Amino acid sequence: MSTSSTPAPGARVDGRAPDELRPVTITRNWLEHAEGSVLVEFGSTRVLCAASFTEGVPRWRKGSGQGWVTAEYAMLPRSTNTRGDRESVKGRLGGRTHEISRLIGRSLRAVVDTSALGENTVVLDCDVLQADGGTRTAAVTGAYVALADAVAWAKRKGLVKASRQPLTGSVSAVSVGIVGGLPALDLRYVEDVAAHTDMNVVCTGDGRFVEVQGTAEAVPFDRRELDAMLDLAVAGCARLTQLQQQALAEGS
Amino acid sequence: MSTSSTPAPGARVDGRAPDELRPVTITRNWLEHAEGSVLVEFGSTRVLCAASFTEGVPRWRKGSGQGWVTAEYAMLPRSTNTRGDRESVKGRLGGRTHEISRLIGRSLRAVVDTSALGENTVVLDCDVLQADGGTRTAAVTGAYVALADAVAWAKRKGLVKASRQPLTGSVSAVSVGIVGGLPALDLRYVEDVAAHTDMNVVCTGDGRFVEVQGTAEAVPFDRRELDAMLDLAVAGCARLTQLQQQALAEGS
Amino acid sequence: MSTSSTPAPGARVDGRAPDELRPVTITRNWLEHAEGSVLVEFGSTRVLCAASFTEGVPRWRKGSGQGWVTAEYAMLPRSTNTRGDRESVKGRLGGRTHEISRLIGRSLRAVVDTSALGENTVVLDCDVLQADGGTRTAAVTGAYVALADAVAWAKRKGLVKASRQPLTGSVSAVSVGIVGGLPALDLRYVEDVAAHTDMNVVCTGDGRFVEVQGTAEAVPFDRRELDAMLDLAVAGCARLTQLQQQALAEGS
Amino acid sequence: MSTSSTPAPGARVDGRAPDELRPVTITRNWLEHAEGSVLVEFGSTRVLCAASFTEGVPRWRKGSGQGWVTAEYAMLPRSTNTRGDRESVKGRLGGRTHEISRLIGRSLRAVVDTSALGENTVVLDCDVLQADGGTRTAAVTGAYVALADAVAWAKRKGLVKASRQPLTGSVSAVSVGIVGGLPALDLRYVEDVAAHTDMNVVCTGDGRFVEVQGTAEAVPFDRRELDAMLDLAVAGCARLTQLQQQALAEGS
Amino acid sequence: MSTSSTPAPGARVDGRAPDELRPVTITRNWLEHAEGSVLVEFGSTRVLCAASFTEGVPRWRKGSGQGWVTAEYAMLPRSTNTRGDRESVKGRLGGRTHEISRLIGRSLRAVVDTSALGENTVVLDCDVLQADGGTRTAAVTGAYVALADAVAWAKRKGLVKASRQPLTGSVSAVSVGIVGGLPALDLRYVEDVAAHTDMNVVCTGDGRFVEVQGTAEAVPFDRRELDAMLDLAVAGCARLTQLQQQALAEGS
Amino acid sequence: MSTSSTPAPGARVDGRAPDELRPVTITRNWLEHAEGSVLVEFGSTRVLCAASFTEGVPRWRKGSGQGWVTAEYAMLPRSTNTRGDRESVKGRLGGRTHEISRLIGRSLRAVVDTSALGENTVVLDCDVLQADGGTRTAAVTGAYVALADAVAWAKRKGLVKASRQPLTGSVSAVSVGIVGGLPALDLRYVEDVAAHTDMNVVCTGDGRFVEVQGTAEAVPFDRRELDAMLDLAVAGCARLTQLQQQALAEGS
Repeated sequence: MSTSSTPAPGARVDGRAPDELRPVTITRNWLEHAEGSVLVEFGSTRVLCAASFTEGVPRWRKGSGQGWVTAEYAMLPRSTNTRGDRESVKGRLGGRTHEISRLIGRSLRAVVDTSALGENTVVLDCDVLQADGGTRTAAVTGAYVALADAVAWAKRKGLVKASRQPLTGSVSAVSVGIVGGLPALDLRYVEDVAAHTDMNVVCTGDGRFVEVQGTAEAVPFDRRELDAMLDLAVAGCARLTQLQQQALAEGS
Repeated sequence: MSTSSTPAPGARVDGRAPDELRPVTITRNWLEHAEGSVLVEFGSTRVLCAASFTEGVPRWRKGSGQGWVTAEYAMLPRSTNTRGDRESVKGRLGGRTHEISRLIGRSLRAVVDTSALGENTVVLDCDVLQADGGTRTAAVTGAYVALADAVAWAKRKGLVKASRQPLTGSVSAVSVGIVGGLPALDLRYVEDVAAHTDMNVVCTGDGRFVEVQGTAEAVPFDRRELDAMLDLAVAGCARLTQLQQQALAEGS
Repeated sequence: MSTSSTPAPGARVDGRAPDELRPVTITRNWLEHAEGSVLVEFGSTRVLCAASFTEGVPRWRKGSGQGWVTAEYAMLPRSTNTRGDRESVKGRLGGRTHEISRLIGRSLRAVVDTSALGENTVVLDCDVLQADGGTRTAAVTGAYVALADAVAWAKRKGLVKASRQPLTGSVSAVSVGIVGGLPALDLRYVEDVAAHTDMNVVCTGDGRFVEVQGTAEAVPFDRRELDAMLDLAVAGCARLTQLQQQALAEGS
Repeated sequence: MSTSSTPAPGARVDGRAPDELRPVTITRNWLEHAEGSVLVEFGSTRVLCAASFTEGVPRWRKGSGQGWVTAEYAMLPRSTNTRGDRESVKGRLGGRTHEISRLIGRSLRAVVDTSALGENTVVLDCDVLQADGGTRTAAVTGAYVALADAVAWAKRKGLVKASRQPLTGSVSAVSVGIVGGLPALDLRYVEDVAAHTDMNVVCTGDGRFVEVQGTAEAVPFDRRELDAMLDLAVAGCARLTQLQQQALAEGS
Repeated sequence: MSTSSTPAPGARVDGRAPDELRPVTITRNWLEHAEGSVLVEFGSTRVLCAASFTEGVPRWRKGSGQGWVTAEYAMLPRSTNTRGDRESVKGRLGGRTHEISRLIGRSLRAVVDTSALGENTVVLDCDVLQADGGTRTAAVTGAYVALADAVAWAKRKGLVKASRQPLTGSVSAVSVGIVGGLPALDLRYVEDVAAHTDMNVVCTGDGRFVEVQGTAEAVPFDRRELDAMLDLAVAGCARLTQLQQQALAEGS
Repeated sequence: MSTSSTPAPGARVDGRAPDELRPVTITRNWLEHAEGSVLVEFGSTRVLCAASFTEGVPRWRKGSGQGWVTAEYAMLPRSTNTRGDRESVKGRLGGRTHEISRLIGRSLRAVVDTSALGENTVVLDCDVLQADGGTRTAAVTGAYVALADAVAWAKRKGLVKASRQPLTGSVSAVSVGIVGGLPALDLRYVEDVAAHTDMNVVCTGDGRFVEVQGTAEAVPFDRRELDAMLDLAVAGCARLTQLQQQALAEGS
């Protein structure tokens, strides 16, 4: 008779079920200066999301009556296991940074009524303090909450009319993949590296899709696998939506 | 009895059926110097794809016995309706350029056996001479053919062993979207601008997915719409695969 | 009795006479979007010239009543025999690129009456699709035709007054050199590399000089050689002027 | 008998005595990946210091038998009251960033025996999460602790010989200034802005000077004022040295 | 009985006393175009200081009624013993360049009444033609004289009101250090390299401090050493103040 | 009887004859550190030319047995009448700077036997301290003398074999133009601005051409004018050759 620490086939590195999120925490008002700020954690992944609300819009949008929401994503050099060079020192943004910043901005704009926002700008800075997979999805999820706080701040200050609601819904995001041949939700870094396919899905609070970005890392994926990943992602986003609502329900 | 030039509801600007590609032409050997080169046209979209085969690999891959395939995408300043500034003059690549270059590179690598390639590098330059929507999908589709020609050249030259086959399959790509509430294949620029959702799909020749990138431009999309777009894309890629095979079957 | 493939002393690589141009083609309206566009070919050298006409002038010229004409030259990475790095990726323009862009701009401005143009700007993008020597001279020659088409377009649109003529003449350009000790016209790449002296000459349609740029590559040249090169260049430009006129005479 | 909320003349905004530090906390091991990491807080100023230990040294130091210690300082965009542009987006480091990074690096090297370190490199990343004055002095103070942890880690791993001690002492830093005509220790942002003179002092644990950087903002300062500021700074650094020692005494 | 060329212990490389400046020359009007210009020499260190007076101020200062004074410092590539790369070619300013430019600007602004200057800008370009230690202190000392000449020019031209005096005093600067264990004034390059501590001090003409920047290069310094260095620096600046006054007293 | 200060028609601003150079001075050894250095003056134009001799060659030339000679040209910000922005601050070299640096390098290489130089590099830094037209031609003329001194230094040091002569001749350069309808030599800035045509000519000491760069500023020039300018330039370069030889004949 023996016991074995060998995980059962298909078991995940941290023992989670395939459809299980890591522990998620959303800490509002982590910063004193920002109009909205959130420290969001998906397990060891830790992203600081700061929403800066400013009156006025970029030049190309002036006079339109419409506001603007944008995002910038970055990783601290030692957020990862080995230190990465600073993009400020290299003097140029990498493609991945650009790509993720654009993704976050688009995701948030999907639930923003820019007319209701008026000619104001909200910039969401999403800085990864510690990375263990899923930094972009944590960033989207936390940035939404910071955005909601900044919008509420602007309404209290009268910068956005009380009668208007700039947010038409909520967004959250999660990663899914095919790891060891099986679909899994919210991949950690070691899972991400091992995954045959990696997909990031951004959903609205009512379960529709804002972004679906799936990439075969080594082996192309078929329609059945795609469907399985989409199912996991939709359920994961629904759970994240609840957590966002709970966080926002607490007095700030 | 009357004739009317008003399109029926749901009709496309150029009268195509929802599942109809624009006329596609693949002209091989458009350049004298490159080891493989293709001028690919999806309607008015015209992309020049040049494959440069060189012995050796980037430093981080030396001694691995494995080759490397990468891509660079760019648009000529006047490929578009209004002139865009050159990124070489601005001194930095935009996020969109980075993103598309990375997409093309990943798509091609999905069908490359880098061990069979040996320590050789193929760079695919995809320069958009004229743009009317779908430049990235035309680029992937044309770049595959240029890559195939460059690999064949290398085998003839003995730079890749006759017994090895660096290409494990083929790839093609097409855009789909929800335009006027209806799913449509291979969007032209005016359709792309009007689309509620824009999706780019890269498939292997055997119909599996390499990349699925869907973005809601204004209105989130639901699972039914996603499924309809995926169906169109898979069929479109299958047709493009045929056209690639026909082009490669002609004596070079 | 024997035949020999050895060229007679002084014969050129492609058998041309010393004062003979390569086959030149000027294809107008190669692009759909640009106000003027030309694909110009000097043998295998192939340059796409796009003229973009826009209302307004750079800030330093506002209120002057005068227009502006400028040019940007670039080579596609695989236009040459071995791939060159993209200047957009390197993040800076090389000296050669700057130099040639400035040369093309000055050459065109030599035949432009900026008052007659009004406060409008024409940018000439000259992108080398394939290079076999003489890319800058082909660019000047083709850009003039694209400029003429853009000016005609602006007159039709009423953006330039019908009573004014912004073009005071025409320009064309050709290279000359001392190859194998003998003066030769319109050098191909292999000749250019072997030349002791390389000279680019830009002439107006009436045979005067706009630019004369001669450089001794290895052996300084004397006055007699300089005179011989100038004679060849003037005759070459006269022939190019005819070809420009023929191209422009055809209905667009 | 009366009570008054008006501060007595010379009183500080937060009621501190002139020679009183703000509450200081030093939290070790704030990050999982870094060999040493500290979240240091001087009141609301919050700096994350990560020490990355890597084998090997920069090229110019190879074969010297000596290690290298360097630092990079940066502020998150919304660490301040109004959002600052990212230096990675602007594509260049500002002078202030350069200056502070160099200051931190020099300060740490003052207590490092690079021979004892062996050919290893430690990079200290000091990222300001929230700023309220004194970010550079908090960074030096926190970075020393992170460095000590990284060195201890390296000794445990055998990367630094057990018999060698790379740290020859400790360093801490504090700001002083002349505010409202009176010398004051550890300035908050509002004090810093109002100060006639601003000085940053870096001391070793045994009370000697590593850096003295005093700048008259509006009114030059005299020798008596300089002496008073130095006295405050030396006492402040002594207190910070105690806090560093306490933090390091706790089991990590 | 013997003579020895060995310097007595503590003697300096060029035989100067510890408190002795190198020969200093201040040549006004070295340039024809600048509103003020000085070639300043501290021994072999030779810095060209050009003051450019222009009407108007940077955008962020418009409408304030106040002027602006700033400085840019640079070294010619071969001002030093081994050639340094040009920062214009590298495409970015180094940290040292930034740091010194900022120091010079702050030092000059300490004696400028920007209201009296009116909305005018003076830029001080300090280019090191030859370097032998103390380039930043020579730059401050020379730049003050060039600034005084530019201000006088502006008063003559009526660009600054005759009744206003933009200069509230004068500034000069000198380096001090601990070399071979002893304090020494105005270090040459070889002394600077050997110094345990290097300090730059900027004083007003009335002997107060504008900047005190001391750095321990290898061995921290104590309060007694700091006091000795400050004494030397104050005396050195007093001597430089005299030389500035003499230079300005000569007819320009 | 009257005297008039009105210049006769065709007279030059400074009363020079059409074929007369400005006063030229060539001061060797202006710098202490450089292996060769010259302050060259053409009237008010003042260029500092420093030759840096270093062992070794750029990577692409290693193992060739051949040396390399290159040049970098720059203008100090206030060398001109109105201050120009620093290219180091702008972060990129302008086209003109590139162009002139390349011209100087080519001109010098025309008289260098790189085999005789051995695998050594000479960089010529040509920094314009004051500009009044003809800076590039003064730079070529001065740089040749600095190069000759650096080569002599290398022979004395044994870095170039005594039996080899890296210099195969000398080069000088001068500007010519059509001013007020008449050809004139060595244009000052005001003449250059007014010239219809501006030409820079680089000649070897034996009177052959290395570079001929003529540009019509407003009015194209004809063959007769070109011939007249070439005559003036050849005579001017001959005079400059004498001045170079005299300067080099003086003991250094």
